[in-house]
Amino acid sequence: MNDINKWTAWQMAEVINQGDVSAEEVTQSCLDRIAEREDAVKVWAFLDPDLALKQARACDERRSAGNPLNLLHGVPVGLKDIIDTADMPTENGSDHFKGRRPTRDAASAALLRAAGAVILGKTVTTEFAMTGQRGTLNPHDPARTPGGSSSGSGAGVADFMVPLALGSQTGGSMLRPASFCGVHGYKPTYGSISRHGVFILARELDHLGVYARSLKDVAMAGDVLMVRDVGDFDMRAHPGARLLEAFAETEENPPRLAFVKGPPWAFAEPYMDQLFGAYVDGLSDIPEVTLAGIFDEALDAQATIMNANVWMNLREYVDHYEDQLQAETVRRVIAGREISAADYIAARELTDSLIAALDGLFEHYDALITAAAPGEAPIGLESTGNAAFQRIWTLTGLPTISLPLLKGPNGMPIGVQVIGKRGKDADLIRVARWVEEQSA
Amino acid sequence: MNDINKWTAWQMAEVINQGDVSAEEVTQSCLDRIAEREDAVKVWAFLDPDLALKQARACDERRSAGNPLNLLHGVPVGLKDIIDTADMPTENGSDHFKGRRPTRDAASAALLRAAGAVILGKTVTTEFAMTGQRGTLNPHDPARTPGGSSSGSGAGVADFMVPLALGSQTGGSMLRPASFCGVHGYKPTYGSISRHGVFILARELDHLGVYARSLKDVAMAGDVLMVRDVGDFDMRAHPGARLLEAFAETEENPPRLAFVKGPPWAFAEPYMDQLFGAYVDGLSDIPEVTLAGIFDEALDAQATIMNANVWMNLREYVDHYEDQLQAETVRRVIAGREISAADYIAARELTDSLIAALDGLFEHYDALITAAAPGEAPIGLESTGNAAFQRIWTLTGLPTISLPLLKGPNGMPIGVQVIGKRGKDADLIRVARWVEEQSA
Repeated sequence: MNDINKWTAWQMAEVINQGDVSAEEVTQSCLDRIAEREDAVKVWAFLDPDLALKQARACDERRSAGNPLNLLHGVPVGLKDIIDTADMPTENGSDHFKGRRPTRDAASAALLRAAGAVILGKTVTTEFAMTGQRGTLNPHDPARTPGGSSSGSGAGVADFMVPLALGSQTGGSMLRPASFCGVHGYKPTYGSISRHGVFILARELDHLGVYARSLKDVAMAGDVLMVRDVGDFDMRAHPGARLLEAFAETEENPPRLAFVKGPPWAFAEPYMDQLFGAYVDGLSDIPEVTLAGIFDEALDAQATIMNANVWMNLREYVDHYEDQLQAETVRRVIAGREISAADYIAARELTDSLIAALDGLFEHYDALITAAAPGEAPIGLESTGNAAFQRIWTLTGLPTISLPLLKGPNGMPIGVQVIGKRGKDADLIRVARWVEEQSA
Repeated sequence: MNDINKWTAWQMAEVINQGDVSAEEVTQSCLDRIAEREDAVKVWAFLDPDLALKQARACDERRSAGNPLNLLHGVPVGLKDIIDTADMPTENGSDHFKGRRPTRDAASAALLRAAGAVILGKTVTTEFAMTGQRGTLNPHDPARTPGGSSSGSGAGVADFMVPLALGSQTGGSMLRPASFCGVHGYKPTYGSISRHGVFILARELDHLGVYARSLKDVAMAGDVLMVRDVGDFDMRAHPGARLLEAFAETEENPPRLAFVKGPPWAFAEPYMDQLFGAYVDGLSDIPEVTLAGIFDEALDAQATIMNANVWMNLREYVDHYEDQLQAETVRRVIAGREISAADYIAARELTDSLIAALDGLFEHYDALITAAAPGEAPIGLESTGNAAFQRIWTLTGLPTISLPLLKGPNGMPIGVQVIGKRGKDADLIRVARWVEEQSA
C-alpha cells in the first residue's frame, strides 16, 4: 500500500469501491506526500489535514452504511484558490482577500462533493488568476516556473500530492502549467463547467478545467463537472459530453489530424521545430495546415477582450486597495482602461469570424495538433511563461487538452496540445486517446 | 375587382392561386394607388412600375405553366431601402449611397422572391436607418410623422400601396411606425430573419421585421422569412416558428397576460393612462406587473450598445464623407465615440440579467401587453418620435407585435404592443390573435 498517492484518480476510486483501501488511507497518503514535499514546491494556499481526513472518514462511513457510491468516491481533489468553498478560505491569490471565508461552495466544488470527492485543500493561484506569481515552484526543477495562473493545481498533480485538481484559463492558465509540469490539462468547450462562485476575470473568456495524471481521470472529472447550472449565464444548453463513454470506445480508423502552428509559433523556442516536427512525423501522415489571414489578429483580439473585461471587473480593487495588490496586478488591470467600445466590438466580431473559419476547418479534420507551450518551463519565477499557445483557443472556446508526451533538451516536460471542435468534447477525448496510444 | 390593393396579402395570394385575378392585376392595382397617392405620402425610394409588372407577369406565366405555387405567389412586397436588391438600387437613405447598385439580393429579398413575391420597390428609410428623416408623411395626417426609421414601409402598408413590407429595428424602428400608421408591425425574436445583405447599424440589436394589414399576413411572411442562414452569425439554430399553423389554432383558454409599464411609460402622453388602462380593463382580468430594479438601467444600456456599435460601423462615413451626411446622422454617429469598453461590457452583462429576469416573468405569463408608442404620432416631421416603448425588447431580443387597435384623442392610431417569450414566436401569434378577437 505504499505510494497510494501516485495512483490515478480512477484507480483510487476503484480500490476504495472494492474496499481494498479506505478513503482515509488515500487521503492520508496524499497528506504524507504533501508533508514531505510542500516546502519544496509550495502548492497549497490552504490545507487543513484534519478537515480533509474528516471528509475522507465520512466517505468511508457512507460506504460502510451501504450507500451507493458515486464516481469520485473518496478521491482527493485540489481546488484553485479562486473557487469558493464554504469550509475553507478562498483568497483569490491576493492579500486583499486574506482570510476571506465564502458562505457557500462554488457550483463546481458542490458537484465534486456530490460525486464523493474529498476537497483536499486550496491550491496556489497567481493574484486574481493573472500573472502575479505566489511562490509555487516547478516540481521537476525548482529553478523553473510551474506556469500560471493555476500554478498550484498543475504542480500539485505533477508532484503526486493530489490526483485531480481544478484550474482556470482566461489566457493560457490551464494548459501552460500542464505542459510545464508534465500532467494532463483539459479545458472543455466554453460554457461547459459552471463558474458560479468563481472569481471572474472576463466572462467571455473564463473557463474552468481539470488537471490529472491520466486521460481517463480527465474524462471522469469532466463527466462530474460538465453539468448545466443556471447560475452561469454563459453555459451551453447541454454541456454533458459523456467523456468516459468516449474514452472507453476504440477508434477503428486513425482520426483526421492537422498540425497547426499559426501566430503562436512565433514564440516557440528554437528547438521546437525539430522536436515537434519529428513527433508529428512519427505519429502518422499528418498534414500541416496554415492559420493565417484573420488569425494574425487573433492574439490582439484576445488581449483586447481580456484586458477590457479585467479593467471592468477589477478596477474597484485598483481604485480602492492598490496598496494591497502586487505591482504586476495593477499594471495588468490598468492595461484595459483606455480600450474603446468600438475596438472591443471589433475584437468580438473578429472572434465570430475565427469561430466560423475554424468550423470550416473542422469539416476536414477531427482535431488539430500543436504544442501546448513555446517550450520547456522557463528558468526563473518572475514570469509564469507565455500564454500564446492557448489564447486563440480560449478566445474561440474550442476544447483543448495537453498530453504530457514530450521532453525538451533539458529533460523538462512539453505537452502535445490537441484541439477539438467546439462542443465536441467527447470526440476530443477519443482523438487524445488515439494520440496517446500512438505515442506509447 | 376594384380596390384589390386594399386586400390583405393572403387574400391576394388566394385569388391569384384560384385564377380569379392575375398577379399582374394585383401589382397594377398597387401601382395605381401609388400613382394616386405617392406625392401625398412619399413612400418610395425606388419604384419602377415596368420592373414590378415584369415580375408579376413572370408569376402569371409560372402559374399558367402549371408550376406549384408558393406562399406569397404574386403578392407585392416593399423593402426598406437598407435591404439589398440585385435589380434595384439600395441607397440606405443616404446621399452618400446615391445610385448604389448591389450585385446580389439580401437573404430576406431572396427568400421573398423564392416564395413567389413581387418586389414592388424600395421604401424610404431615414438615413442609415437612424433618425434623419427623408420626407415620408403620415398617411392619416400629413402634418404628422409616420415614425422611423422604417417610415416608407409603415406608411406604404397603411396607405394600401402594398400589402406587405419589410422594415428593421435597432431601437424602435419597426413597431413605432406601425403604431403611428395603424398597421401590424412584427419584430420576431432576435436572430430569426437573416440580415445578410442588409446595412448593419449594430449587430447585437438589428432585427428585420414585417408590416402588414392583418395578423395572418404577418404569420405568412414570418414563415417565409424565418429561415436559418449561415450568412448571419447571430441567427438562432431553428428560427422557423410555424406561425401560420399557430395562427390557425384556436385558444381554448385566455392567455395569461400581464400589463407592464416600466421605464418607457415615463414618456407616455398624459391621455395614455386613461386610454390604455380602460383598454386593458376591458380585455379581461389582467394584472399590472412592475418592471423596476435593473429595468431602470435598461434604456441606458440599449443606448450604450447601440451608440457604440453605430460608431464602430459608421465612423468611416463621418471620417471621410461628412459633407454628404445629414447633420442629425453625424450627431448620432459621434455619440458613441467616447464609450469605453468597460461601460459597453457592463451594458451587455446587464442585458443578460434583464433576459434572465424576463425569463422568470414568463414562467407566470404567456405574454406582456403595453403600448407600442408614447401616444399618437407627433405633429411635425423633424422628429420620427420616441423609441422608448421598443428599446427594452430590442435589447433583450424578445418578439413583439403591434396591433392597430386603439385611437388617440385626435383620431390617430395607437398600437397595442404584445411581447412574447424569447424564441416563442408562435405563442406570441396565438396570444395576439386572442387579443384581436377580444378587441373586435
